[in-house]
Amino acid sequence: MTKTNSGNFFEDFRLGQVINHATPRTVTSGDVALYTALYGSRFAVNSSAEFARKIGLQSAPVDDLLAFHVVFGKTVPDVSLNAVANLGYAAGRFGAPVYPGDTLTTVSTVIGLKENSNKQTGVVYVRSSGTNQRGEMVVEYVRWVMVRKRDVNAVVAEEKVPDLPAAVAAADLIIPEGLGLGGYDDTLAGSPHRWGDYAVGEKIDHVDGMTIEEAEHMMATRLWQNTAKVHFNQYTEGQGRFGRRLIYGGHIISLARALSFNGLGNAFKLVAINGGRHANPTFAGDTIHAWSEVLEKIEVPGRSNLGALRLRLVATKNQPCAAFPFKAENGKDFDASVVLDLDYTVLMPR
Amino acid sequence: MTKTNSGNFFEDFRLGQVINHATPRTVTSGDVALYTALYGSRFAVNSSAEFARKIGLQSAPVDDLLAFHVVFGKTVPDVSLNAVANLGYAAGRFGAPVYPGDTLTTVSTVIGLKENSNKQTGVVYVRSSGTNQRGEMVVEYVRWVMVRKRDVNAVVAEEKVPDLPAAVAAADLIIPEGLGLGGYDDTLAGSPHRWGDYAVGEKIDHVDGMTIEEAEHMMATRLWQNTAKVHFNQYTEGQGRFGRRLIYGGHIISLARALSFNGLGNAFKLVAINGGRHANPTFAGDTIHAWSEVLEKIEVPGRSNLGALRLRLVATKNQPCAAFPFKAENGKDFDASVVLDLDYTVLMPR
Amino acid sequence: MTKTNSGNFFEDFRLGQVINHATPRTVTSGDVALYTALYGSRFAVNSSAEFARKIGLQSAPVDDLLAFHVVFGKTVPDVSLNAVANLGYAAGRFGAPVYPGDTLTTVSTVIGLKENSNKQTGVVYVRSSGTNQRGEMVVEYVRWVMVRKRDVNAVVAEEKVPDLPAAVAAADLIIPEGLGLGGYDDTLAGSPHRWGDYAVGEKIDHVDGMTIEEAEHMMATRLWQNTAKVHFNQYTEGQGRFGRRLIYGGHIISLARALSFNGLGNAFKLVAINGGRHANPTFAGDTIHAWSEVLEKIEVPGRSNLGALRLRLVATKNQPCAAFPFKAENGKDFDASVVLDLDYTVLMPR
Repeated sequence: MTKTNSGNFFEDFRLGQVINHATPRTVTSGDVALYTALYGSRFAVNSSAEFARKIGLQSAPVDDLLAFHVVFGKTVPDVSLNAVANLGYAAGRFGAPVYPGDTLTTVSTVIGLKENSNKQTGVVYVRSSGTNQRGEMVVEYVRWVMVRKRDVNAVVAEEKVPDLPAAVAAADLIIPEGLGLGGYDDTLAGSPHRWGDYAVGEKIDHVDGMTIEEAEHMMATRLWQNTAKVHFNQYTEGQGRFGRRLIYGGHIISLARALSFNGLGNAFKLVAINGGRHANPTFAGDTIHAWSEVLEKIEVPGRSNLGALRLRLVATKNQPCAAFPFKAENGKDFDASVVLDLDYTVLMPR
Repeated sequence: MTKTNSGNFFEDFRLGQVINHATPRTVTSGDVALYTALYGSRFAVNSSAEFARKIGLQSAPVDDLLAFHVVFGKTVPDVSLNAVANLGYAAGRFGAPVYPGDTLTTVSTVIGLKENSNKQTGVVYVRSSGTNQRGEMVVEYVRWVMVRKRDVNAVVAEEKVPDLPAAVAAADLIIPEGLGLGGYDDTLAGSPHRWGDYAVGEKIDHVDGMTIEEAEHMMATRLWQNTAKVHFNQYTEGQGRFGRRLIYGGHIISLARALSFNGLGNAFKLVAINGGRHANPTFAGDTIHAWSEVLEKIEVPGRSNLGALRLRLVATKNQPCAAFPFKAENGKDFDASVVLDLDYTVLMPR
Repeated sequence: MTKTNSGNFFEDFRLGQVINHATPRTVTSGDVALYTALYGSRFAVNSSAEFARKIGLQSAPVDDLLAFHVVFGKTVPDVSLNAVANLGYAAGRFGAPVYPGDTLTTVSTVIGLKENSNKQTGVVYVRSSGTNQRGEMVVEYVRWVMVRKRDVNAVVAEEKVPDLPAAVAAADLIIPEGLGLGGYDDTLAGSPHRWGDYAVGEKIDHVDGMTIEEAEHMMATRLWQNTAKVHFNQYTEGQGRFGRRLIYGGHIISLARALSFNGLGNAFKLVAINGGRHANPTFAGDTIHAWSEVLEKIEVPGRSNLGALRLRLVATKNQPCAAFPFKAENGKDFDASVVLDLDYTVLMPR
């Protein structure tokens, strides 16, 4: 019997199945430094322990997406090693802030299964939850992936397409304990624009662009211990669909979020990922630009100095975003330049 | 109104203007590891906590240039986002050593303004000062940059070209508190050559060369949260002046300093940057070599076991330095291979 | 007199000579993060402080090979700066686990010298020992390298080829103090296969492949402060034997070890390097695959919950390992695809 992990195929999953993922991971200031080196993020709360303490946190939490990537990475060997495509995200929430020294583990539950009509693949829906060493949820989300079947003739026990919310409800957003924005310094944060300055429907071109190198996306993806083969092996991928290594979609999310600082500098904390799609693949050499649209302004119950913004974050490849590229001429498909459509919610001082 | 930062243009600056830069930054051992990975520096004081403690420091301070890059990076969004060229440095001093855990912020004062005769650009002189969380100066320096005007017809209020010293005076050099060199171990430091062994006029070819990759200089520059667009965006730069991403000049300074270990292994601490110029641009694929010349031997008042050396550090691209390349045949311009001419001062045990 | 290090040539070595290497190095969580980013290692003991504590360790030790690389790197300026080839390793043992904060130094003893018949080179055998700040051995090993002579006519004082063991004896393996495997969790470790599940002669194809970029191997090699010129200088190497920068052999060892997680996920600790050879050179762009063979199953005296496996780890370039490539058709040379043949011993729960 082979001792190597060949991953789960579509027919291996069962509704309600709970998967305890391997490789607990202690997050450190080394990860934080690499995150900064890879994405150039400038949000002051994650950059400065002093700034973080001034708003009631114990120290500088790691970037919320760093926690997301670590939690996500653990699911790959069990959920998506035989994936054809990563189809979407929903119902994502960020919980306890993650600090260097925290150890994260991930557990997933299969909440949906739907075989494709070609019988060669099916869609698997999992709810994954990352917790720290005290058992506190740090990030949870639903994602669905198209997974190959091992055996076309295998029969799938029970199918279900889960109901997923269009967005995380305001009442379900988690505000970090102790957070107080009296000491929030706009000058140090790098933006004078607070919650009240943004309007629904407002679009922001984040202007800057970032070109991706092979070494960068591979270092990032290994850092999250994400084992998806398509990102690393040019020998195999050179003979494959694209002839090239595919970049981990999460790498684009982090790049776009870092670019969004220019225009959203006070969006200091992610609280929800309402939905998301990797619209087109990206490869080394591509230059990423991004733009945002304010989808919703959300009052946070009992918080007069803090509001939430629901945002659409769109990233493109090799296409500046002054014209806010999004849909193709048919109004349905994504524009060929669009690589990410992320619907997420942030906190901002008001 | 746009919420993105378009940076200051020449006519936006005023003499005496004080700029509090954004993005305080807590330096960590993660940054130190990346610094080593990017430059291969081997100075024992920065490499070993034990070595540092033996000479009276509390632990291993970060490389002085790491502190410089962090402090410098903060100035870019406000000072040089619309710069055409980074013209020079002067009057640089290093103050309190920076240890992992320290949080750095930067404040700049505009000390000079001079419009160019073409009315399209002008030179801005700023004195920038980086401080730690206790308000202690860690590095300060003057730099001047040529900045575009937004409006050719804009009138500049008041002009002044500041008087800048040729070098930091010996009396102004800052020796770290508690520094005692009784426990300095030449073998562990990797060089038997102390202050007394160097002579004014002596030239040292540092022999080794280092080729730069795109991923390396971009990771470095993002690590310092330096947002100058020319370093990152191949889509735009591919259509620009050089057709390529330009490497941050500070990356070359750090590479040359790391190469200078071979011949200056006991030059364990930078205390001044007297002057510096990025003589020619560098690009990924270039191989950097370096050589040094001893410009001055400086007695440190009241210190019998410690001396300072004022050094010229020259870096080249794609040209070994056995012949000490420097000026072109006209004796005035730099040789085409020269990319850095740095005049700085170091401490060395005697 | 030159102040730069030109390294030792063959005739500079003496039998019994002790070399105290420079550049003590404090290992940090920054190094650990880079190690993960460069190799994608997933062994839970090194990844999670919580996991490590559950098996009796004080925290997550750094990867054993990280310690090896740091200890090895220090020897390069003195031992192999003028090496033509790194010929082999033997008698390697891992001692005290290395934790972030530990400071490592290396001392080498010349235990063998053998001039080659061409009089232009000779083989130098050194036993190198790395110790932490408490003087505890963390890793020791013998390696031999072919080193150029400075002067073909130089006479070598005394020659000797040392007797080297085929493998480290079971009684000499060092088990970390306090190690107890009662709390070892197979699910979190990522493998259900324990010591008892492996059989002598069993071969495992580790399936996955990893392509190497220039930025990655150079960052790694600089991180270990390894100064071998062939890895860094394209200007010189472009004119040399291969026309390209050569990858540090240790980089391949770490990549292969990380790949071996897939099939050997519970091989949580290296205790010996019995022997090793870099069979062929590797270059950026090469894709590394690996396979293992169980050479020996070793009972650990007095330990019922712990066994050792002696393994052969073979790495290839641009050749998947389903067919276990090893020797060429002549049965003697290595197959052209093979780049590493490592004989090492690991601990595994039973």
